[in-house]
Amino acid sequence: ALYRGIENREEVVGKIRSLHSDALKKLALKCEDLFMAGQKDQLRFGVDSWSDFRLTSDRPCCEAGDAVYYPASYAKDPLSSYAVKICKSKAKESQQYYHSLAVRQSLAIHFNIQQDCGHFLAEVPVRLLPWEDPNAPAKEDEETDEEEEERTERQNRDTSPGAESASQGGASKQRSHVVVITREVPYLTVADFVRESLAQHGKSPDTYERQVCLLLLQLCSGLEHLKPYHVTHCDLRLENLLLIPCKAGGGVQKSEPSEPSPTAACPARLIVSNFSQAKQKNHLVDPEVFRDQSRLAPEIITATQYKKCDEFQTGILIYEMLHLPNPFDENPELKEKEYTRADLPRIPCRSPYSWGLQQLASCLLNPNPSERILISDAKGILQCLLWGPREDLFQTLPSLASPGQRAAILQNWLDIKRTLLMIKFAEKSLDRECGVSLEDWLCAQYLAFATTDSLGCIVSILQHR
Amino acid sequence: ALYRGIENREEVVGKIRSLHSDALKKLALKCEDLFMAGQKDQLRFGVDSWSDFRLTSDRPCCEAGDAVYYPASYAKDPLSSYAVKICKSKAKESQQYYHSLAVRQSLAIHFNIQQDCGHFLAEVPVRLLPWEDPNAPAKEDEETDEEEEERTERQNRDTSPGAESASQGGASKQRSHVVVITREVPYLTVADFVRESLAQHGKSPDTYERQVCLLLLQLCSGLEHLKPYHVTHCDLRLENLLLIPCKAGGGVQKSEPSEPSPTAACPARLIVSNFSQAKQKNHLVDPEVFRDQSRLAPEIITATQYKKCDEFQTGILIYEMLHLPNPFDENPELKEKEYTRADLPRIPCRSPYSWGLQQLASCLLNPNPSERILISDAKGILQCLLWGPREDLFQTLPSLASPGQRAAILQNWLDIKRTLLMIKFAEKSLDRECGVSLEDWLCAQYLAFATTDSLGCIVSILQHR
Repeated sequence: ALYRGIENREEVVGKIRSLHSDALKKLALKCEDLFMAGQKDQLRFGVDSWSDFRLTSDRPCCEAGDAVYYPASYAKDPLSSYAVKICKSKAKESQQYYHSLAVRQSLAIHFNIQQDCGHFLAEVPVRLLPWEDPNAPAKEDEETDEEEEERTERQNRDTSPGAESASQGGASKQRSHVVVITREVPYLTVADFVRESLAQHGKSPDTYERQVCLLLLQLCSGLEHLKPYHVTHCDLRLENLLLIPCKAGGGVQKSEPSEPSPTAACPARLIVSNFSQAKQKNHLVDPEVFRDQSRLAPEIITATQYKKCDEFQTGILIYEMLHLPNPFDENPELKEKEYTRADLPRIPCRSPYSWGLQQLASCLLNPNPSERILISDAKGILQCLLWGPREDLFQTLPSLASPGQRAAILQNWLDIKRTLLMIKFAEKSLDRECGVSLEDWLCAQYLAFATTDSLGCIVSILQHR
Repeated sequence: ALYRGIENREEVVGKIRSLHSDALKKLALKCEDLFMAGQKDQLRFGVDSWSDFRLTSDRPCCEAGDAVYYPASYAKDPLSSYAVKICKSKAKESQQYYHSLAVRQSLAIHFNIQQDCGHFLAEVPVRLLPWEDPNAPAKEDEETDEEEEERTERQNRDTSPGAESASQGGASKQRSHVVVITREVPYLTVADFVRESLAQHGKSPDTYERQVCLLLLQLCSGLEHLKPYHVTHCDLRLENLLLIPCKAGGGVQKSEPSEPSPTAACPARLIVSNFSQAKQKNHLVDPEVFRDQSRLAPEIITATQYKKCDEFQTGILIYEMLHLPNPFDENPELKEKEYTRADLPRIPCRSPYSWGLQQLASCLLNPNPSERILISDAKGILQCLLWGPREDLFQTLPSLASPGQRAAILQNWLDIKRTLLMIKFAEKSLDRECGVSLEDWLCAQYLAFATTDSLGCIVSILQHR
């Protein structure tokens, strides 16, 4: 069947095109398996497993907005790495954690959303809580409304999180905290990364701003995943976004998962954490409530009101990741007046990405939610900034009369890019390290699923605003 | 530059085509590095290294026509495997070995030609010489005209090849033999393989005859490599062709190099061994000799006379590999009369390859050397049988009037095949085992360097005879 119509050049060209796009789709899915090796099976460690976890270090690997992370090992799976997340909130406020847990458990697993493999309420030695004053009065015997199994677990865990706890002087002081086991071991928050990259941004703005695009793209992928579940994060800040050293697949890269170098094309895997402020629109609305809500203006119903909140916060993050202040912190009266994109501070043009990031931020910070672009469009814009089509190509597009001609050019561009990416993957098959990188995967996702329509739409957003 | 002319579909199609063919050429070369990992550096073990070699087994791994092979290890490179080849000829006849050595040393390294990493004359315990009668009179102190260094080496090696030699009763008897160190450890001769595959040929003729094509293709590659050096092997027999378990590149496949299964697509790497009968036309012909030869009929000058001898012998090997007798053994008077292809025995049609192998054998066994096809054409025919274009395609070719149309179809075929192979390689980049196989490499060589002219030429050989 493949060779039917082989005398017709047009048919052959069409066949080669569909071979490429089908193969790229398969590759993108295979990459997902590789990069999420093992993580696609939902892990759920029960009470009986807690005692098999040990912290491998007394020093946190990462301090995030809502928690501190310690590297840990699991006796029954010593080759995998785990992190133990100790939530900052007191046990009293742990219902917040259970709220975020309920939200996350309603979601399917995604590469850019933090997973919870098990959690419990534990008595944590003060030395593992760097933000607490060890001299504060010791824990009151607060009783929260936890489930029975967690209350009984408390005793088991008393000594568990640090084997040497007894040897330290002040270690007898303990506090009750929610402890979570995760598969992804963060090494930095995006806040840390941005702070540490200030000099790098000045020295090589192209590299740094490209990294920012790759991180924002991952953020958008994670947020896009929330949409069909009607979940809005509502607390997107640099310190709630974590970076995980990224390696493809268990068997392939045998080298130690070293800290990624800050100059690498893609700094790391980004995961969205801290869903404590998340809003979820319930599918099964109580008919009573529904009848009440049906007469309310949409901006007053919470879930509807928050629908484009993540888009707005992503816009702020663009400024912050480019070492600029949040425009609304800088200028609080901005929100009071009916501001336009012209009122937003200019992003200095330091790299080929700056202009596009400015466009994107303006679109995301549109005060009118119905005019604000969707997170899926933001993703498309970032893909376009990263891998093209570049400005030089789409400057020639408007000069063409017919939409047919425009589509033909975009199709030609897509065909060449797919060929190049396929060749890149083919060459990696002969690499000793078999190094398909996270960036390769992200690019494969883009080119596999792009169409002339989706490309045309992004190009026109970038051209017309 | 890649995107110049992007509005012109024809230019884009041409660009994609040249991207593919350039990339395939690069891939084919990279495969060579991978499959010959390390072997491209000529190894030459001197006298000082002999004592660092040890046989790792007392049982031969392979018994070939001219020698017996033992697996060996080298103390200074314990991770590589070596074989020690003990030549069957007596020391007296060892000048034959030095002849073959001189021929081989004039050649560049090739994947399908045996390499000699060092050799010496040694006293070998009789138990390592399975073809010898241990009760025959012990070695006479024969003095051959070896170089001085080899004579002194003899003492050093007396106990070396087997550490336990002293423990065995009859082991005190020794014989003087040429011993060679090689990198490629053979596990079978093609004679063994053919004998052991008789049942397999009956059970799955498609698989077996495809394996025969892959082995013959490797044989032709090796023989083609001899041509620019004006070397003719002249003793191509099943027992002089060795099989080596094939694995790509050191680091990539970490699993034990197990014996390849007889049902695998490509049974193994084939190497041509035993150059003791090889003829080489000397470039620097003595002017005296040249003047004499200039008046002789070409068939009388040895090197010219033997020029197409390997082609002929390859034709016989096709019969033998298909479990058929050598036609000229069966019917000795065949050579006496002016036989035609019709006089050659029919190869039974048991698989899609049988008909093509029959064509190929007839072309190679043409009694007239000037009408006999070249080894490079034989290679092209085998590639065509293995990977196409298939009969169904080239049955449509003659119906087309213009050669331009034929070329266009062959180009379309090539474009589709290259796309498919590129996709195959790309998918392997995500395989845990990174398993680019020998067959993938052989196919990449074909598609990388094929042109519509070369394809057209092979198709017409297969059609017109």
